[in-house]
Amino acid sequence: MDIIERKAEMREFSIRHRGAGRHVGLVPTMGALHEGHGSLTRAARRDCDVVVVSLFVNPTQFAPGEDFERYPRAFEADRAVCEGLGVDALFAPAPGEMYPPGGETSVVQDGLATVLEGASRPTHFRGVLTVVLKLFNVVLPHVAYFGQKDYQQTVVIRRMVADLDVPVEVRVLPTIREADGLALSTRNGYLSGAERKQAVCLYEALTRCGERFAAGETDAARLTRVMRERIEQEPDARIDYVELVRPDSLAPAEPARRGDVALVAVQIGATRLIDNMALGQATGVGRSGYPPGAAG
Amino acid sequence: MDIIERKAEMREFSIRHRGAGRHVGLVPTMGALHEGHGSLTRAARRDCDVVVVSLFVNPTQFAPGEDFERYPRAFEADRAVCEGLGVDALFAPAPGEMYPPGGETSVVQDGLATVLEGASRPTHFRGVLTVVLKLFNVVLPHVAYFGQKDYQQTVVIRRMVADLDVPVEVRVLPTIREADGLALSTRNGYLSGAERKQAVCLYEALTRCGERFAAGETDAARLTRVMRERIEQEPDARIDYVELVRPDSLAPAEPARRGDVALVAVQIGATRLIDNMALGQATGVGRSGYPPGAAG
Repeated sequence: MDIIERKAEMREFSIRHRGAGRHVGLVPTMGALHEGHGSLTRAARRDCDVVVVSLFVNPTQFAPGEDFERYPRAFEADRAVCEGLGVDALFAPAPGEMYPPGGETSVVQDGLATVLEGASRPTHFRGVLTVVLKLFNVVLPHVAYFGQKDYQQTVVIRRMVADLDVPVEVRVLPTIREADGLALSTRNGYLSGAERKQAVCLYEALTRCGERFAAGETDAARLTRVMRERIEQEPDARIDYVELVRPDSLAPAEPARRGDVALVAVQIGATRLIDNMALGQATGVGRSGYPPGAAG
Repeated sequence: MDIIERKAEMREFSIRHRGAGRHVGLVPTMGALHEGHGSLTRAARRDCDVVVVSLFVNPTQFAPGEDFERYPRAFEADRAVCEGLGVDALFAPAPGEMYPPGGETSVVQDGLATVLEGASRPTHFRGVLTVVLKLFNVVLPHVAYFGQKDYQQTVVIRRMVADLDVPVEVRVLPTIREADGLALSTRNGYLSGAERKQAVCLYEALTRCGERFAAGETDAARLTRVMRERIEQEPDARIDYVELVRPDSLAPAEPARRGDVALVAVQIGATRLIDNMALGQATGVGRSGYPPGAAG
């Protein structure tokens, strides 16, 4: 496995493989890899000739006061994970390599990027879109893999790819969950034991919403109330938002339909967690969110 | 010569040629081609295996009240020019092909894009950067050609290419001028006979500035005053800006140095013209701004 720190070297790697007719897949990550990233990487390994995993904790998607400094860095562990998954190249640039001094160009998005996470974190998607476009331009993948856990991110990135005619195919894979349903996230590591137990409220709220919808409820206000009530049972949970939206437009889902997406953002103590579930989607836990036969 | 209207077909064309190891050059234009575009296209023809000229009057770089509707469209003449220059493909998408409904992603730039033209036309460079990135992503050129006449545009595009790691080389070629020094521009066609005579004031102002600098003057206020005084001799000329800036940062040039750039934007009657000249640059007219031996 190649460890690549320079953009120029990364691009040469990909141009060489593309020139030889090989299909390149990219799994963009912020490192501290878990089984969510693992499932994306296995999918890339299955689909592509060459698999690149990028490890870059992108400063521009964190606002001042968020957890950029605290966000875990685990290069040696990540390297071992990637070796084990048969990754061809790990792209791990330093911040100064990705953002040399003097930069002043960004990718921005109206509409989709301004609601939900964008309302709570106004500079977040500008940072995400800009770094994703940069990674695409450096790694030059045919395909890039993202997890559904960050649902709005996948919508916003797909929108960018369409709007800017970016020559990369975006594939989105299901959220991977713990046995109790908690969506895997690097930020789960911030939780205390007591908080970890309470954190299951996101998943359970979404599940209850799905069950009520399956039982015939389509009133968005009542469906979101079911979610709120479950989350509010936890003493350390503070709701940021609980919404039910159309899958591509992120417009309010009223009345709710199959395929609409319930999204929750909840502060558990000092840790902000997000999760989502499509109405009509299977709500199983563990690896069951992953396509059958794909794991392992 | 291929005439291509669809983005997908354009991309396939380039991927096919790139796959065969051929170097692709793009000359992005808004059509109504003149010898300025001609010089860019000849350079591309000289440098590259495959030459693509795009013709697209980009609505998003015009503000309401500007000349988008009035901007000349001359497809048949442009096609003949491109045939004559040995162009391989003309990419001429309809507005709805470039901007399908629902688009909401843009490229923005702070700093460089907010001064000079950006101050006078606040939405202009957002439109320019977005369409240029889209054209790059559709045409997938190795090299793209721009004229120095739109000096700030070249700086802003180079900045975008660096900041977003766009895998395209930008080449900038000298301004082509009429015999009296007027920089070639599609908008010159808007001028009445009397206005056309007065329009030479832009070039003459820049030339006088260059002469004063060559004679030892480095005070920016005095150099810009020389330019203002020449322009103000014309009854129908109204100055938008007259500035002297550092070449890459566009910061005020004080004191002026060789390589700094004088820029003027002047309304001649109802027509807004721009021009620029680097201090120490040859100020000849006609083809003389072009590298020796390069023209047709």
